[in-house]
Amino acid sequence: MNREPARKSLWTWGTTENEPTDEQRRHAAAAVSAMVGSEVVAVAAPTPESIELPASRVTVPEHLHDICATDTYTRAAHSIGGHPMELLRGFRGDFTNPPDVVARPRTEEDLERVLEWCADQGHATIPYGGGTSVVYGVSPPDSESIVTIVMGGLSQVLDIDETSRAARIQAGVSGPDLEHQLRSSGHTMRFFPQSFPWSTLGGWIATRAAGHYATGPTHIDDFVESTRMLTPEGWMESRRLPGSGAGPSPDRLVLGSEGTLGLITEAWVRIQKRPVFRAKASAEFPTMETAAEAVRQIVQTKLWPSNLRLLDPVESQKSAGGDGSHALLILAFESADFSQHANLLEVTEMVERLGGSITSGSMRVIDESDAVGDDGSAAGAWRKSFTGVNAGLIHGLGFITDTFETAITWDNWPAFDAHVRAEVGRALESTLTASWLSCRFAFVYPDGPAPYYTFGGLGTTGGEQAQWRIIKDAANRAVIEAGGTITHHHGVGRLHREGWEAQSPALFRAGLTAVKDRLDPTGILNPGVFF
Amino acid sequence: MNREPARKSLWTWGTTENEPTDEQRRHAAAAVSAMVGSEVVAVAAPTPESIELPASRVTVPEHLHDICATDTYTRAAHSIGGHPMELLRGFRGDFTNPPDVVARPRTEEDLERVLEWCADQGHATIPYGGGTSVVYGVSPPDSESIVTIVMGGLSQVLDIDETSRAARIQAGVSGPDLEHQLRSSGHTMRFFPQSFPWSTLGGWIATRAAGHYATGPTHIDDFVESTRMLTPEGWMESRRLPGSGAGPSPDRLVLGSEGTLGLITEAWVRIQKRPVFRAKASAEFPTMETAAEAVRQIVQTKLWPSNLRLLDPVESQKSAGGDGSHALLILAFESADFSQHANLLEVTEMVERLGGSITSGSMRVIDESDAVGDDGSAAGAWRKSFTGVNAGLIHGLGFITDTFETAITWDNWPAFDAHVRAEVGRALESTLTASWLSCRFAFVYPDGPAPYYTFGGLGTTGGEQAQWRIIKDAANRAVIEAGGTITHHHGVGRLHREGWEAQSPALFRAGLTAVKDRLDPTGILNPGVFF
Repeated sequence: MNREPARKSLWTWGTTENEPTDEQRRHAAAAVSAMVGSEVVAVAAPTPESIELPASRVTVPEHLHDICATDTYTRAAHSIGGHPMELLRGFRGDFTNPPDVVARPRTEEDLERVLEWCADQGHATIPYGGGTSVVYGVSPPDSESIVTIVMGGLSQVLDIDETSRAARIQAGVSGPDLEHQLRSSGHTMRFFPQSFPWSTLGGWIATRAAGHYATGPTHIDDFVESTRMLTPEGWMESRRLPGSGAGPSPDRLVLGSEGTLGLITEAWVRIQKRPVFRAKASAEFPTMETAAEAVRQIVQTKLWPSNLRLLDPVESQKSAGGDGSHALLILAFESADFSQHANLLEVTEMVERLGGSITSGSMRVIDESDAVGDDGSAAGAWRKSFTGVNAGLIHGLGFITDTFETAITWDNWPAFDAHVRAEVGRALESTLTASWLSCRFAFVYPDGPAPYYTFGGLGTTGGEQAQWRIIKDAANRAVIEAGGTITHHHGVGRLHREGWEAQSPALFRAGLTAVKDRLDPTGILNPGVFF
Repeated sequence: MNREPARKSLWTWGTTENEPTDEQRRHAAAAVSAMVGSEVVAVAAPTPESIELPASRVTVPEHLHDICATDTYTRAAHSIGGHPMELLRGFRGDFTNPPDVVARPRTEEDLERVLEWCADQGHATIPYGGGTSVVYGVSPPDSESIVTIVMGGLSQVLDIDETSRAARIQAGVSGPDLEHQLRSSGHTMRFFPQSFPWSTLGGWIATRAAGHYATGPTHIDDFVESTRMLTPEGWMESRRLPGSGAGPSPDRLVLGSEGTLGLITEAWVRIQKRPVFRAKASAEFPTMETAAEAVRQIVQTKLWPSNLRLLDPVESQKSAGGDGSHALLILAFESADFSQHANLLEVTEMVERLGGSITSGSMRVIDESDAVGDDGSAAGAWRKSFTGVNAGLIHGLGFITDTFETAITWDNWPAFDAHVRAEVGRALESTLTASWLSCRFAFVYPDGPAPYYTFGGLGTTGGEQAQWRIIKDAANRAVIEAGGTITHHHGVGRLHREGWEAQSPALFRAGLTAVKDRLDPTGILNPGVFF
């Protein structure tokens, strides 16, 4: 094999460079000890040499040697996604069902060769973008032979149409690389999911990821002009159009298909000029209830702020340095063309009228760097924590933390939240000590919020998987019972399949199965997801 | 049969009340004579008594007598949609393939009974909303037996959720009735396709109609929270959600299905407070080219005007009283909450900078009536013509008129328009005298416009169908060759099927066929559309 894939970490997000040091982990252990009132100890992080895997069951044919790897590290690294419990498994060296082969095509022709081989041999075939799935979307199921296809070799921005503000981009490109390639022409896609540093355009499309904007265009769906996908039955490419009403949308079948119908290789997506004018503010509300009502009224005015995120008092304390007595609203407008002064003024007046207090605000013309930054405000602190998640810090401490997210209409929101908090709270209490449950609105629509819950607490070292499962099951059940969606933007994967089945129409699933049978007749693609 | 359906006209849009009088038709004939320089004579309009149809081939079973009609007038009226050439056929008494039975369920149970019967008997089953299809979507194909199911009996707003600004509405409701039922609570759906007076919510969803807004949410797709549809295999109802990322969207399969997968009976749709603040302006540009460039730059600022319609010089002259030397831009902002002064000012400044001249402008707080009105301005005149189309006026004069619409990215727009004008122009020249071809931008996206072309001219009385077909074929071909979509919002129907096949991925169509086979295994639903 000529080209080694980037060295992916076995137990934290990103590459080995993102792994915390032993010292950082000892500090984290001390902090957790202080928090829970009993001593927890950081055990040593695993070394690459310590990994043990079953031997690969697949012989790579000669003509694929140049793009296939079977070494232990690569196979182990691609056997898990980015869920905290998967990373904890990686930390413990528990790699169930690793792929037998990890292929990394450099061209569409490479991809055709690999997929043809997989179809011929009936290998379970796992499409893999950045490996950041938190819903067990890339961890292979129990199969007789498994090939993971890493799309990172297809990573070029192929065409920039400045007139229409769109670009043709290969699906394996990571967020930073995509933005880097757009930057020289003054453009940005401005799509920043939490997984941005590692996740890929193809992964965003396959999982219906949601990005930078809190209102308006939230999901990647709204950025896509056309898609190109290789299925076991051949290529499927849609016509590039700014809008169409010609029958059900082909792209909307690709969006959310999670690697079960084909491997996305390219898309035309909408891009934009880099923002120049930005106006932002933070506000405190005495309760989550008053804040939620203010957010509802603000989003229903359809001014489409780029940020309108609401943190409950617990979240505000944990992530933005609040004192735990207030809900925090983070508000921003941006534009490449016009000052956003008037919009911010309209909304901050609404905030004050609806019981909030503006705690910081700024209006400025920004320079070409609009990277996620820290300006010392509560909003800045939250943004930093947003991108600074590092599950590896707490591995082995017995600590459990996870998130779940959904969407619900405003009329149902109060009862929904009460039900979720009661059910998940009960599960937390029965399994963990020093547990907590917090919530923020990650995205907001005129007809309802997309709440994002985070929970955590101290379980038993070695018992984390079982304890976590009790809480996760309670969360899945509560979300579905109370009328929400099993996922707003994390995807279905293998973790949310039951919830997806509960919420989606049976005949729609039957129709989707018919599509699957047509495009992937031997069912090799990402088995266990949807089908 | 207890309840007679509203008396639909056989040869003009709407009911018999919308039919022009013989005197109006004589005036139109005189105007056309003057325009083309030779005398054309209005022949007498048909009378209901003159219709001749083949006898119904279907015996309605006892248990469906109360909701089925087989009388000549009802069958004739439901054998055609709203395309000018269909209405001309109606005018001439040429009713090919009329339905044998016209059913009008009053409840979902009625609908179940009718559809079960159709499936048992293998009747070709044509779902029918307002009958305004201009793509031969409701005119039955040649079949052994045909039942048209009119959805107008299911027409209630069932639930208004003021908090989330959404409503659960039965699909058979017409535009005006829907708005009437929402009005008492101060809400509006604000979805006004050109067919608004007669078309239905279910028809909008089935055909992916586009409505009031020229930018932002154009298609009905963006208004839908959930759908409920009866298929031959049972009910398919999606969960009501403000947003979701749980796999491919079930609603996006229903949207655009054009009656081939099931009959839509209900949807939750987004509604809003009636607008209070409105700001609008008209502007002239010396050429369509400069105007199009201005529109591109305006829409790319993402201020989302509610109107941003551009009429070329011909269109401006014909529809808005222009002198034929200028392109006309109609611009408006509206809001239920904030003055739109600043937005209008930003855009009118752009207009002046980009070579346009503002010709009228107004800013006002509007009262509760926001019906389409005439305020004497060019924009007002155009709006009047927009809703005042009456194909019946010119029937029998040998006059041919039709429209076609598409969408194309900005980079392709100039070459696209040149190609379409050349090809359609050639077809017009070879078939009609005094012909014309005009264009407006009906909807505009940051990545491209949705151009709407209108053509017309004088053909040969009795030869209109063949002459029209030559021009329509040229238009369909040119649109597809030059990279556009065969339809932006009129639908595919039987008229655009070839273009749809040319533009959509073959594997997607194969997948859709698999869905069709699963939901409608005997293929009774709207045969000839898509499949």
